[in-house]
Amino acid sequence: MRSPEELEAALRAIGEERYHIHHPFHRLLHGGKLTKGQVQAWALNRYYYQASIPAKDASLLARLPTPELRREWRRRLIDHDGDGVHPGGVERWLALTDGLGLDRAYVTSLAGLLPATRFAVDAYVRFVREASVLEAIASSLTEMFSPTIISERVAGMLKHYDFITPETLAYFTPRLTQAPQDAAFALDYVKRHADTPEKQEAVLAALRFKCDLLWAQLDALYFAYVEPGLPPPGAFRP
Amino acid sequence: MRSPEELEAALRAIGEERYHIHHPFHRLLHGGKLTKGQVQAWALNRYYYQASIPAKDASLLARLPTPELRREWRRRLIDHDGDGVHPGGVERWLALTDGLGLDRAYVTSLAGLLPATRFAVDAYVRFVREASVLEAIASSLTEMFSPTIISERVAGMLKHYDFITPETLAYFTPRLTQAPQDAAFALDYVKRHADTPEKQEAVLAALRFKCDLLWAQLDALYFAYVEPGLPPPGAFRP
Repeated sequence: MRSPEELEAALRAIGEERYHIHHPFHRLLHGGKLTKGQVQAWALNRYYYQASIPAKDASLLARLPTPELRREWRRRLIDHDGDGVHPGGVERWLALTDGLGLDRAYVTSLAGLLPATRFAVDAYVRFVREASVLEAIASSLTEMFSPTIISERVAGMLKHYDFITPETLAYFTPRLTQAPQDAAFALDYVKRHADTPEKQEAVLAALRFKCDLLWAQLDALYFAYVEPGLPPPGAFRP
Repeated sequence: MRSPEELEAALRAIGEERYHIHHPFHRLLHGGKLTKGQVQAWALNRYYYQASIPAKDASLLARLPTPELRREWRRRLIDHDGDGVHPGGVERWLALTDGLGLDRAYVTSLAGLLPATRFAVDAYVRFVREASVLEAIASSLTEMFSPTIISERVAGMLKHYDFITPETLAYFTPRLTQAPQDAAFALDYVKRHADTPEKQEAVLAALRFKCDLLWAQLDALYFAYVEPGLPPPGAFRP
């Protein structure tokens, strides 16, 4: 069986190999190679992921056994839903789609979503609801890798796109501090509770699954809006 | 179809008929007719209900569609789980079981729970997870009736039992303000969204179901600890 440190190394190796920072769509996005319409398609589809995060977190919270654990996870709900005064992540994501000129009612209606986005996001919410608490927490560990991608994304998009401003990217700023705090808790939990070879394999599989579903969303964007560029019937057309 | 006001009247009528304020076990509890052991049995069993409330609320929160609704429901999680500084309802309930001389590890282990308590509480959590959002919210409406029972309980128990102090009853004080706030929101939601005869019937049935499961818990306590006084194998014995 792996030591906790070896388990952490194995988790980080999954990120090295599979995190969507390496996806060609992200390289195009960060490198300034997309049209405004393609960036709109990204923001529109990613909205569904953002809007589903609180459902994912609340369904995990519902299965956590102690007030202490639930309070830790409740913080994520506050980060994403806000407190009624300070906007949360969902609201900040809508500032991005607003800034890109997308109609807010159209975005939140999900009418233009790629079906593959819906399938991947729904698979995530369902996984967190149905897998073990340990696996559900492990699936959040992509946050270990997100500060790098966010830094690249914000710098690259501000540099390359004249339709992008710091205000429209306000979603990402708090995530640079929230994600490491969340990831530190989740990593510690996973290292302490994955105490059999079977649980360690389950934890690694959960993180692979999460990386896969983030990756699959970009595959669908690439196919629909880059190459060959064939959005399915009913999906957003720039 | 009922007007919203007629629906509210019908909901209140269910409380008049079915709320457990009328249960003989509660009359004994409030009237000072129970032994310390019987009060311990009540507090021990009711702990499982209290400890399950955040699971119930989080699973509903996971199905609420907007940040606004989720923030409203998130307040309930804070009330029950605390914020890490101020104790929540679960912790305050343990102050009651402590004050009654029950071992905290025994209480939280659930080892002495009446099976009927478990069945009733689990049925509630499952109902909120699986019924419509409207029915799940309606099932919380017993809070419309709780200030009266709490006032009677606190006054009666302080008056009649020398082993009860204001500190051990600290659970109830915040509930006198929290419950009406929660109930006002839920009642308004139900009156606005139960807009067909079928939905109105479903809402009324949900509140009846909730009253029934509170009542059933007291039936079990009465049978096991009052008359005939036959706790099942494995259950707490005073």
